[in-house]
Amino acid sequence: MSLSMYRLSIPAFVRGFGVLSAYLDKADAHAQASGLDPEILVQARLSPDMLPLAGQIQRASDTSKNAVVRLTGIEAPSFPDTETTFTELRQRIRNTLDFFSSVEPDQFEGSAAREITLKFGKMQATLTGEEYLLTFALPNFYFHLATAHGILRHQGVPVGKLDYLGPFG
Amino acid sequence: MSLSMYRLSIPAFVRGFGVLSAYLDKADAHAQASGLDPEILVQARLSPDMLPLAGQIQRASDTSKNAVVRLTGIEAPSFPDTETTFTELRQRIRNTLDFFSSVEPDQFEGSAAREITLKFGKMQATLTGEEYLLTFALPNFYFHLATAHGILRHQGVPVGKLDYLGPFG
Repeated sequence: MSLSMYRLSIPAFVRGFGVLSAYLDKADAHAQASGLDPEILVQARLSPDMLPLAGQIQRASDTSKNAVVRLTGIEAPSFPDTETTFTELRQRIRNTLDFFSSVEPDQFEGSAAREITLKFGKMQATLTGEEYLLTFALPNFYFHLATAHGILRHQGVPVGKLDYLGPFG
Repeated sequence: MSLSMYRLSIPAFVRGFGVLSAYLDKADAHAQASGLDPEILVQARLSPDMLPLAGQIQRASDTSKNAVVRLTGIEAPSFPDTETTFTELRQRIRNTLDFFSSVEPDQFEGSAAREITLKFGKMQATLTGEEYLLTFALPNFYFHLATAHGILRHQGVPVGKLDYLGPFG
């Protein structure tokens, strides 16, 4: 039994945005229940030079969207990073999911062997699509999910490991 | 082109422990340069009821080891969670990597369809090996890597995104 590039990317990304949506709901409810300004949570970060919660969601969106673009060669809408509220972050997630809904499995045909050149800071490398998805795009996507989780936990929002893992299966 | 269950698990885990080893080296160097008690870093956490750095590495070890055990049916050594120093955490990583070195790709034969029953808190589900690896084991493994990263950043240790992503390819 073998796994397709589509199966490894789009469903994982869709699941991840479900997790981020649940985080936003819990963060919103926590702010309302505790009288906390929601903007404090949206702008909360773990370190002064790390991205805040809004930035983690924006990067999760771009990382996953750009992975699909690089693997399939299709075009994607541009999402300017202007979100400053829970409502706007939810819309960013919906926009990203709408893009994924438009992608068909057969558009990933040949993507495992496709050459992808990656630049990150001073590093540059040419990878196959398979290497790129497994060693860059997926780990990077989960980084932003887990960091959003850590930011909310650090702020006292009652998210738990089951929120991160999402529904099984 | 298709991807095997072996390719999706063991190399990802081995890469991840390389990342965690690099984190320990940077944390150790930071403690020495700043005169900080290393135990403060080993025991640092993002929230009172989250696991500290040591716990993140112990869970990364168990999550990945148990994934291989569940997928292949082979036995693995038990690692008691007794590590309290950088040296002991490095040894835990080496022990985990030694186990992975003993696993052959053909031991994953049939693992994508293998039934795996998972219990987590109040939830229980029976998944195929493929679902289990993609929706539980890998996301969970990356959670512990990214949380270790967040803990160190929050403590001022100069780890960066390139440390998390590791060598490309």
